[in-house]
Amino acid sequence: MSIPIVPESALATMTVHLDAIIDNYQTLKSKSSTADCAAVVKANAYGLGMTDIAPALYHDGGCEVFFVANLREAVNLRTALPKVTIYVFNGTTEDQVETILEHNIRPVLNDLNQIDIWRGQPAPCAIHFDTGINRLGLSEDEAELFLNDRPDLNVSLVMSHFIQSEIAGHPSNEMQLDRFIRYRYQLPDAKASLCNSGGIYLGEDYHFDLLRPGIMLYGGNPGLPKRPDGLKHVFELYGKILQIRHLRPGMAVGYNSLWTAAEEARIALVNVGYADGTFKTSDKCAKVFVGGHVANVIGKVSMDMIAIDITDDKFSHITVKDDVELLGANITLEMAAEVSTLGQYELLTGIGQRYNKKYIRGA
Amino acid sequence: MSIPIVPESALATMTVHLDAIIDNYQTLKSKSSTADCAAVVKANAYGLGMTDIAPALYHDGGCEVFFVANLREAVNLRTALPKVTIYVFNGTTEDQVETILEHNIRPVLNDLNQIDIWRGQPAPCAIHFDTGINRLGLSEDEAELFLNDRPDLNVSLVMSHFIQSEIAGHPSNEMQLDRFIRYRYQLPDAKASLCNSGGIYLGEDYHFDLLRPGIMLYGGNPGLPKRPDGLKHVFELYGKILQIRHLRPGMAVGYNSLWTAAEEARIALVNVGYADGTFKTSDKCAKVFVGGHVANVIGKVSMDMIAIDITDDKFSHITVKDDVELLGANITLEMAAEVSTLGQYELLTGIGQRYNKKYIRGA
Repeated sequence: MSIPIVPESALATMTVHLDAIIDNYQTLKSKSSTADCAAVVKANAYGLGMTDIAPALYHDGGCEVFFVANLREAVNLRTALPKVTIYVFNGTTEDQVETILEHNIRPVLNDLNQIDIWRGQPAPCAIHFDTGINRLGLSEDEAELFLNDRPDLNVSLVMSHFIQSEIAGHPSNEMQLDRFIRYRYQLPDAKASLCNSGGIYLGEDYHFDLLRPGIMLYGGNPGLPKRPDGLKHVFELYGKILQIRHLRPGMAVGYNSLWTAAEEARIALVNVGYADGTFKTSDKCAKVFVGGHVANVIGKVSMDMIAIDITDDKFSHITVKDDVELLGANITLEMAAEVSTLGQYELLTGIGQRYNKKYIRGA
Repeated sequence: MSIPIVPESALATMTVHLDAIIDNYQTLKSKSSTADCAAVVKANAYGLGMTDIAPALYHDGGCEVFFVANLREAVNLRTALPKVTIYVFNGTTEDQVETILEHNIRPVLNDLNQIDIWRGQPAPCAIHFDTGINRLGLSEDEAELFLNDRPDLNVSLVMSHFIQSEIAGHPSNEMQLDRFIRYRYQLPDAKASLCNSGGIYLGEDYHFDLLRPGIMLYGGNPGLPKRPDGLKHVFELYGKILQIRHLRPGMAVGYNSLWTAAEEARIALVNVGYADGTFKTSDKCAKVFVGGHVANVIGKVSMDMIAIDITDDKFSHITVKDDVELLGANITLEMAAEVSTLGQYELLTGIGQRYNKKYIRGA
């Protein structure tokens, strides 16, 4: 669908700082002296725009290996980047083989069924060993059959996935590491990859040959107790003020009158709502940043609109068409997640499609 | 962005039944013997696809008036339907006037500021009188100034919006009706519109000249105590099974091991997660429909994946690539909302972008 040109005042804006994403990539890569670093760009680069972000990571960050979830994402990425290595986490079915080969994509084979489909292919593939999350990947029994059988495959990568790498002391991490090492050394010619964002902070023992961060590229914290040094915020979401209203005491705002003015109040209506993916739920008070200060979201979130309280004198200069930061350096993903039933990952991937998107280079 | 063709097995599917939407439109229209019926198609037709749904409503349903939230939506819709009447709820700013006129769109003017911008235009507009929700719309004071001043405008529609029309006995409905009648009779040459989906069920006194349903076109219930007769479900979301696994007792599934198999278990991994907008949150057990039976979602929802429990013998025929209904006739919006912190509206508009979309005519 082509996007018609309309004045910016009609739209909320998402600004993505490509240099900050590249900086985060370099920060993550620098945590290991041995491993190369890939980028996980599934789910449209966690909602921020794969076909803009992946080329920046390749051309300016030197990233040459990318991971996506499904084949459409892989083919989209291949169209943008003809030369990089692309792994698709979901693996393959019989009818996907032709498309995978045509676009030089590498399937991550997750079970004996997928391995049978790919058997005999000279094109490279990854093998996913499950080491305890019991999601995708070869189970212990399947791994044993596979390693005894040694089917004819060109295995370029062996990988596994953590249960809770963000909790440094959790015994599951060491347990998964031990299991992964056992598998990894049975396929010594393949590269090995275990670390998602959180895993990178578990130390060199866990790094192997290829790191594959996702959330931290995009400025999110996977749940580490302290936000890592050097991790940059990479985007801002701004709504625009549509209307400003003065309320008398007792006047209620929004569906079901969930917020009532105790005194004279001044409120602003902002052109984003749950259809734009922000502040969907929870009884806690969500915040925005406007005119240099934090303001409260009041009343029920509408599909296309939120109301904010700008009664205080410090907001007296606020006017129609002003930008309101919904997420960014002042209203961080961490802050937004604290007042939501959604986590940082869900807030990111839940960002809606109505934002006017701007991709920025330079400070 | 062009959508590359990949095998359907790689993707989850959204099927939208255009005839069911048209049937719902006719059902809603038939509730009034006097009023015409518009369609609210903002937020990409509540997430289901405006540029497919609005043309079906026009060509096959006879709907000639549409409401959207912002100017980009309006211009998109104009491209698809050159002749219909399009109102944009957000109104206008100075710099939007030219685009609005170029595309023959009608702004809903929400305050004296917007009225001043549009003053003197021969092109039609709507006036939004706030009658108590204290969101967009002319406040009581502004309405008085406006009605005394009588600026030079071609007002084709006067409208207002309910606080809680889904609660039939709520005193706010009658209060808002009284206020709206007072405004409406000061501008007798304009058509009048008060009813959203819920309002339509408040009876003929509330109908005026133009109904403007949204959620019920798409099969959702705005909160009426009983699902109205004749209201049809209009879409299904299907995920595909990527892998089936057998678990021994004590094996845990997913991030943070939130679900543990008490006995031998058989689980399926399905290719949708929170990035696809379903089952994002809440501790309650979400359900899917697979192989003719309801199954439980287990463990933590991942970005691109859910796990479901198919241990019971009734699921023994389930296999890889089978479709899993996430929402539809068997897992209704009402059922999904019951086990979520999100409501029906949020579940609808939160549906993600990775579905292979199919628009179906006929049974």
